Amino acid sequence: MRLSRGFLPTLKENPAEAQIASHRLMLRAGLIRQTAAGIYAWLPAGLRVLRNIAQIVREEQDAIGAQEVLMPTLQPAELWRRSGRYEAYGPEMLRLTDRHERDLLYGPTNEEMITDLFGQSVRSYRELPQVLYQIHWKFRDEVRPRFGVMRGREFLMKDAYSFDTDPEAAVATYRRMLLAYLRTFQRLGVAAIPMVADAGPIGGNHSHEFIILAPTGESGVFYDGGLEEQDWLSSEIDLADREALAGFFTRVTSLYAATDEKHDEAAWAEVPADRRREGRGIEVGHIFYFGTKYTESMGISVSGADGAPFHPEMGSYGIGVSRLAGAIIEASHDEAGIIWPDAVAPYKAAILNLKPGDAGCDALCERLYGASPDALLLDDRSERAGVKFNDADLMGHPWQVIVGPRGAAAGRVELKRRATGERVELSPEEALERIGLPAVGGPGGHAA
Amino acid sequence: MRLSRGFLPTLKENPAEAQIASHRLMLRAGLIRQTAAGIYAWLPAGLRVLRNIAQIVREEQDAIGAQEVLMPTLQPAELWRRSGRYEAYGPEMLRLTDRHERDLLYGPTNEEMITDLFGQSVRSYRELPQVLYQIHWKFRDEVRPRFGVMRGREFLMKDAYSFDTDPEAAVATYRRMLLAYLRTFQRLGVAAIPMVADAGPIGGNHSHEFIILAPTGESGVFYDGGLEEQDWLSSEIDLADREALAGFFTRVTSLYAATDEKHDEAAWAEVPADRRREGRGIEVGHIFYFGTKYTESMGISVSGADGAPFHPEMGSYGIGVSRLAGAIIEASHDEAGIIWPDAVAPYKAAILNLKPGDAGCDALCERLYGASPDALLLDDRSERAGVKFNDADLMGHPWQVIVGPRGAAAGRVELKRRATGERVELSPEEALERIGLPAVGGPGGHAA
Repeated sequence: MRLSRGFLPTLKENPAEAQIASHRLMLRAGLIRQTAAGIYAWLPAGLRVLRNIAQIVREEQDAIGAQEVLMPTLQPAELWRRSGRYEAYGPEMLRLTDRHERDLLYGPTNEEMITDLFGQSVRSYRELPQVLYQIHWKFRDEVRPRFGVMRGREFLMKDAYSFDTDPEAAVATYRRMLLAYLRTFQRLGVAAIPMVADAGPIGGNHSHEFIILAPTGESGVFYDGGLEEQDWLSSEIDLADREALAGFFTRVTSLYAATDEKHDEAAWAEVPADRRREGRGIEVGHIFYFGTKYTESMGISVSGADGAPFHPEMGSYGIGVSRLAGAIIEASHDEAGIIWPDAVAPYKAAILNLKPGDAGCDALCERLYGASPDALLLDDRSERAGVKFNDADLMGHPWQVIVGPRGAAAGRVELKRRATGERVELSPEEALERIGLPAVGGPGGHAA
Repeated sequence: MRLSRGFLPTLKENPAEAQIASHRLMLRAGLIRQTAAGIYAWLPAGLRVLRNIAQIVREEQDAIGAQEVLMPTLQPAELWRRSGRYEAYGPEMLRLTDRHERDLLYGPTNEEMITDLFGQSVRSYRELPQVLYQIHWKFRDEVRPRFGVMRGREFLMKDAYSFDTDPEAAVATYRRMLLAYLRTFQRLGVAAIPMVADAGPIGGNHSHEFIILAPTGESGVFYDGGLEEQDWLSSEIDLADREALAGFFTRVTSLYAATDEKHDEAAWAEVPADRRREGRGIEVGHIFYFGTKYTESMGISVSGADGAPFHPEMGSYGIGVSRLAGAIIEASHDEAGIIWPDAVAPYKAAILNLKPGDAGCDALCERLYGASPDALLLDDRSERAGVKFNDADLMGHPWQVIVGPRGAAAGRVELKRRATGERVELSPEEALERIGLPAVGGPGGHAA
């Protein structure tokens, strides 16, 4: 995208309403605009981030055999009356009526609807397990929405639901999902630590929250630093092997991690002092095995191997996709702006043309930009170099390719890594290679 | 996807509530399920269709320089009070209040919100033109929703909005969008004819509906068959050249096309008799240049070349993405089921294993399936061959690869083209090549 043509409105001033870094930076970098309290429009660069996050989430759900569906945002109240949650849910549920005075609600979560869809279609234990998920907008009418997309009212969430024949199968599904989550967050470039959470009526340790460390987090967190050092992407675990899954689960849960709610001082004291990590954290995911709560209350059963009907065992698994856009910034920014992890950045690099109108600068910038116009942002505005440097730092592109008249004449560019500030002079081809983009041809291709 | 594991619930019986072919077939093929009147959940195969359609729409919007954003589904009533449409809109607008008694509405369209976002960010004529679009869910509270996703209440729509300096520039933008629409529908594999529509207060011929011929259509249509014969994908038109755009526009509008509302018998009589096409049609898109209606009513202006502020000229451009899933089926089905155009099919082909358990069939099917597990559906169920044939025809995969024990022993498969019924015996490699999938290796690779 050419910045001169793009709808990428950056702000010079800090917006008064933004109390935390991610909210401030998302407004200033032109990622979002508020349209009502706790409700945001996503501008082009913000939408690219949101979509990058969603795609990684999707790929890791698919990798464990989950199947994507899309449920409507509005649900009939009747469904929630069947489970008993319609009255119980409280004022965070946005209730409404249509022109025929039928009661609807804007889904805050989808256990009821997915259980109903499952019950309409699945008849036999032979069709289990089933794991269904969607990535879609939800609404929770927070009494005091704040912190931008971190605690918004209309938010994008990945919600998955599993159906299994028995508790052992359900626990295996839970463990596969835990692995998918660890891989998802690793790919996103953030450390999200799984912490034992309140397990509800079933008990056991099959409820985990995933928490990103950030000073503005809503909970205190305590964990073993060994959890940050694991490489889940390269660890091969046979998803069909329940023993391998149990071994993996032990490997995760044997390392201490808890929010202040569940903190256990005695267990904490046993963590080697140099591995104790303590701070505040933001919840970006939650996985939960809850058994037959909904299949029972909604009267959903399938026939078992012996012909007798039974209520499938369920779990649900959420990731706050829009919240993650903010949480990643909370975990990765500095005074100058955002520092996007490569995997979620809206553009892989910005090309800064320091002197538009200079034939050498223009030609070299166009050649670089032509390599991957969709992956690159070309700052071709007639602004001072300082403005371009500041905007590029603010927007947080992982790389900046800086093109000035002297360098252009010599066929050289400066490549800056946003995360470290490191700058190095290179040929245009070397710069593209470093960024991970295909090279381009053309007469200047060998000028360096 | 393996059909034995997939959430692809087909129905043998025709659902009583479905009056038209697309609704019946979408329910029977397991693409959608109704969750409330006019509100649907999209099951895995249906979501794949929806996403294929949306991606083609997106690519053609991007190709003319439109930029994607994502606005929230819920909008503050205040915005619509500014334009004067809040009271005017009528009962199709779903109005609601949040816990603080603030008036909200579920957006039926987004002129107000995009105009407001534009006004917050764009200051100068130098930043024009801007074309912004989103692909997102809308709600219109139809008094009598019916025909499945063809006239649903919660529906997925691509809505684009343009901002230009003057009427000439706005008309050029309109013409680029017309071209993008023609290319979009051609890629989708359907004939959608542009018809002059009511132009509203501005007059002129800069309002077109795009209509797919189908007997269940809501309007009568009359058009010159020459419109179906154009190849818009290979016709090169310089998008920056206003004269070229004008020539293209003349080429389109000189061929007669009108709905019954705008039908002109005198002009119709001049169309050569062998090119007259008459029938009923479904509106799947609408483009509209309406000038300063919203920028004026909402008080949005930018500074012109002379320093004086002016109201930008706007247009809006819709495509009914979820409606298209139904409309394509209306235009492309037979007694046995759906006939998906290749570009939107949920799977490129189904592999029918006629004898699961037969070592030769199983090995050959696995080898074929392994070529592209994401693009293929493997019917590995222990069902009779007739059930598999019927379900494959019902689901409408463009190709069926039929694997029986004798063929497997000889290293041969039968390849059936759904649209024509043509069957041909081939080697597995030839079948994959015909479908357009990469070949696979393995010991059986050269058995034929």
